[in-house]
Amino acid sequence: MVDIDHLSKQVSATGRRGGGREARRQARAKAVPSFPTLERRIPVYEMVPDEAIERIHDASCRILEEVGIDFRDDEAAAMWTAAGADVSGYRVRIDRGLLMNLVAKVPPEFTLNARNRERNVKVGGNNSIFVPMYGAPYVRDLDNKRRYGTLADLNNFHKLAYMTPALHSTSSIICEPMEISVPKRHLHIIHSALTHSDKPFMGIVTARERAEDVMAMAAIVFGEDFVEDNPVVVSITNCNSPLVWDATMLDAMKVYARHNQPVILAPFALCGASTAASSVGAVAQVNAEALAGIAFTQLVRPGSPQLYGQFMVTVDMKSGAPMGGTPEAAQMMFLMGALARKYKLPWRTSGFHVGSKLNDAQAGYEANMLMHAAILSGANYIWHVAGWLEAGLVAGYSKFVTDGEQLVAWYKYAQGVSFDDFAEAMAAVREVGPQGHFLGTRHTLEHFESAFFMPDLMDFNSFEQWSAEGSKDLDARGREKAKAMLAAYEPPPMDEGIAEALRDFVARRERELPDSVG
Amino acid sequence: MVDIDHLSKQVSATGRRGGGREARRQARAKAVPSFPTLERRIPVYEMVPDEAIERIHDASCRILEEVGIDFRDDEAAAMWTAAGADVSGYRVRIDRGLLMNLVAKVPPEFTLNARNRERNVKVGGNNSIFVPMYGAPYVRDLDNKRRYGTLADLNNFHKLAYMTPALHSTSSIICEPMEISVPKRHLHIIHSALTHSDKPFMGIVTARERAEDVMAMAAIVFGEDFVEDNPVVVSITNCNSPLVWDATMLDAMKVYARHNQPVILAPFALCGASTAASSVGAVAQVNAEALAGIAFTQLVRPGSPQLYGQFMVTVDMKSGAPMGGTPEAAQMMFLMGALARKYKLPWRTSGFHVGSKLNDAQAGYEANMLMHAAILSGANYIWHVAGWLEAGLVAGYSKFVTDGEQLVAWYKYAQGVSFDDFAEAMAAVREVGPQGHFLGTRHTLEHFESAFFMPDLMDFNSFEQWSAEGSKDLDARGREKAKAMLAAYEPPPMDEGIAEALRDFVARRERELPDSVG
Repeated sequence: MVDIDHLSKQVSATGRRGGGREARRQARAKAVPSFPTLERRIPVYEMVPDEAIERIHDASCRILEEVGIDFRDDEAAAMWTAAGADVSGYRVRIDRGLLMNLVAKVPPEFTLNARNRERNVKVGGNNSIFVPMYGAPYVRDLDNKRRYGTLADLNNFHKLAYMTPALHSTSSIICEPMEISVPKRHLHIIHSALTHSDKPFMGIVTARERAEDVMAMAAIVFGEDFVEDNPVVVSITNCNSPLVWDATMLDAMKVYARHNQPVILAPFALCGASTAASSVGAVAQVNAEALAGIAFTQLVRPGSPQLYGQFMVTVDMKSGAPMGGTPEAAQMMFLMGALARKYKLPWRTSGFHVGSKLNDAQAGYEANMLMHAAILSGANYIWHVAGWLEAGLVAGYSKFVTDGEQLVAWYKYAQGVSFDDFAEAMAAVREVGPQGHFLGTRHTLEHFESAFFMPDLMDFNSFEQWSAEGSKDLDARGREKAKAMLAAYEPPPMDEGIAEALRDFVARRERELPDSVG
Repeated sequence: MVDIDHLSKQVSATGRRGGGREARRQARAKAVPSFPTLERRIPVYEMVPDEAIERIHDASCRILEEVGIDFRDDEAAAMWTAAGADVSGYRVRIDRGLLMNLVAKVPPEFTLNARNRERNVKVGGNNSIFVPMYGAPYVRDLDNKRRYGTLADLNNFHKLAYMTPALHSTSSIICEPMEISVPKRHLHIIHSALTHSDKPFMGIVTARERAEDVMAMAAIVFGEDFVEDNPVVVSITNCNSPLVWDATMLDAMKVYARHNQPVILAPFALCGASTAASSVGAVAQVNAEALAGIAFTQLVRPGSPQLYGQFMVTVDMKSGAPMGGTPEAAQMMFLMGALARKYKLPWRTSGFHVGSKLNDAQAGYEANMLMHAAILSGANYIWHVAGWLEAGLVAGYSKFVTDGEQLVAWYKYAQGVSFDDFAEAMAAVREVGPQGHFLGTRHTLEHFESAFFMPDLMDFNSFEQWSAEGSKDLDARGREKAKAMLAAYEPPPMDEGIAEALRDFVARRERELPDSVG
């Protein structure tokens, strides 16, 4: 079992100021700790029996066979025709034999490479990784103000991702750097992710040439040959539910799949609006959409690693807005997990995504309603597990570090209970006997630090102590911790030639690209 | 499936002021809605294989056979001697044959009666009930101040328990009425629980004569004959871990078991202090303690209904205080649930118990870390699911109503996903096709309100709307809702003769009992 408590304590220490320049130099010399891939040692939870999963599978197949799905791109439609699907314009009807034949080509597990190869992770099977959020135009900042995100914020979030040991990825667009024009923004996002952290990162999908720029930057860092075959970047393509894969998404899928880079094929379903008002019905539709996308990637490059996935939220009747931690969102994860296992596909879900505006009790209830399901449903790529507020409109600093600590709890949870020291524990019971206590036993002294999760941000001090420290809620403590971590940040080393080549690439593309879209 | 959304809406309406006296009279005429017993329709989660549970069982048996456990009461020791246990002073060694023989006498399921028999609930098997917290000396009040509890607070909490549809019990000492002297306090606690609500309630265990007073008051309300055989009150006896059942607890067990009233036999384990620093070791010890207590109740009255249970928290290394929603607390629930099923015992765990001082993000993360485990581990009597803050030192008004709404989510979750309208949902997909939306389909119009959990306190409005409403966090919204509910409260009807007899009993016992202990 990974001694994550020891690792956590190292990073807590990193997060505290003091000791000056020399101490910081020493901290830099020691690499920032990072958890390895989480190998789950607990069984998955099957909420429904296999027959129910087969019913959903059959319904999904019938959707693709009888209703069909749009691939709104001439090249994609032609590829489907060549593969033997029933194509009429952009409408593609795929029979289940062809579909399953293509889906079966996806490897059940792959290694996602980091520029620091000690940060490489495994995706699929019994492995899970934790990935920070993506896509917020706004931030809730270090003073708890909600405002547009900036490149400085994005740099900060990439720093925090690097310093949070339970995060396995830097993500990419944690928040949008809104001051940078859209056609050039991707350059700065990827540059920030690649330089402020050395963990795996995520791509850009908003245009074909932007995806190509991502691959060019990855080639600078990892080597041109390496990125032709080895996964280094995960990108997200959302199906336009119901049943449309549009040209932008298909372009991104083509660029990344041709480079053997995994794409998440994830319908973004607002259940009740872009799906039927039925959890099971929504899953059947989303499954059809995801499978069709996965199958398409195998037309582009058979055997390329891909991620099956979903992002399914219910819609608030009052506001029409997506909700966060609802029981249905949790239940649908279990159905999607069972389907992923049936298809032997690595799969993605979301962990701490909440509707709350604040890092308050609502956020906490929502977050752990979902994360418990993400872990027990056996998800491999557990995304949006740091920073997510307000249905993804906002990246919060306090939420980010709060989530970062909670991930340690979930990491520990998923490793299961240990019987390794059971005999010694039972010997301690004999030693202590009725009405004793265990604090002084050898077993306790040896195991206390590692036996139980000991968070730092969660407060269990006496009321008096907590009052003396300012009666701060978790949100306030989170902001303080984020400030302290950022103050202690030291960048991971990068070869100066590579750093320069990256800067040159960004500068050249900045000159080449227009300042506004269209 | 229970139409809980409809019920929830009724109570939301009850919680809002307006309409004056006539509207209130009408509200009174309609009974306050209340959910029936939750029948879980999802499988339990088995975190470890059966062999692991057998190892724990064997270790527990060896503790009771070889180390033994103290029953610090002469009558109890004599009863164990008569039953054939190996007794030396108060130390009782029980072999597994005798132990299992006694444990097998406990019914796997029983009906817990309420004074309003529509509120009767089933305890055991696939049934779960939700019970508010118990035992706080302090409250966090309607103005978010932390202060000692009063009888007025206790009355309020009993009113809120009555008005919260997903709560199946009124509990009893939600907070302590600190202004009332200890020897007389139990009279007012039970009187408040019995009059302000008509749901099942909980007993008092702090002295034999207090337990007898509880039974006398129950007899006034339910009838003397009825309470000799039919469960109407659940009481909590905590083992003094490690391995001591003290005289006070044994007295309470004797009083209640003789009346066929269920007692929760629940070691209160501070893991790492009163148990070994090992989750599995702690469970083995707590299991031994609980089984020995259960077995004792069957010496008192064979076949009496009882509740196996646990309250296991880890201890904070910094403060020595009990922690709340830790991964180990969740894991230990799964082990205890598997043991309960092995023994065919109804069992109790705790849901929303947290260490947080405030109804903040910490509380939310902690609460749902635990509740998810409570539901999936198949717990029957899910306690401390409303109000609990600060490791049980504080009953919070805002936390109480927040929890009350979250219980609706868990109720819904545990009912599983529905395939009932699957064919119609799939027909809707055909009707809508690619790039449509489902908002206007017949299926959506018919199912939208009931398909998905629609909370009231959780906010999913736009940021602008939320700002216009005062940018309130969940804690603030919870206090407002609690105030509105209390303003709208109307007591459940009670026969005037019974009400008078209860008042007379309290008055008489007030005169008889001393003002201070000793």
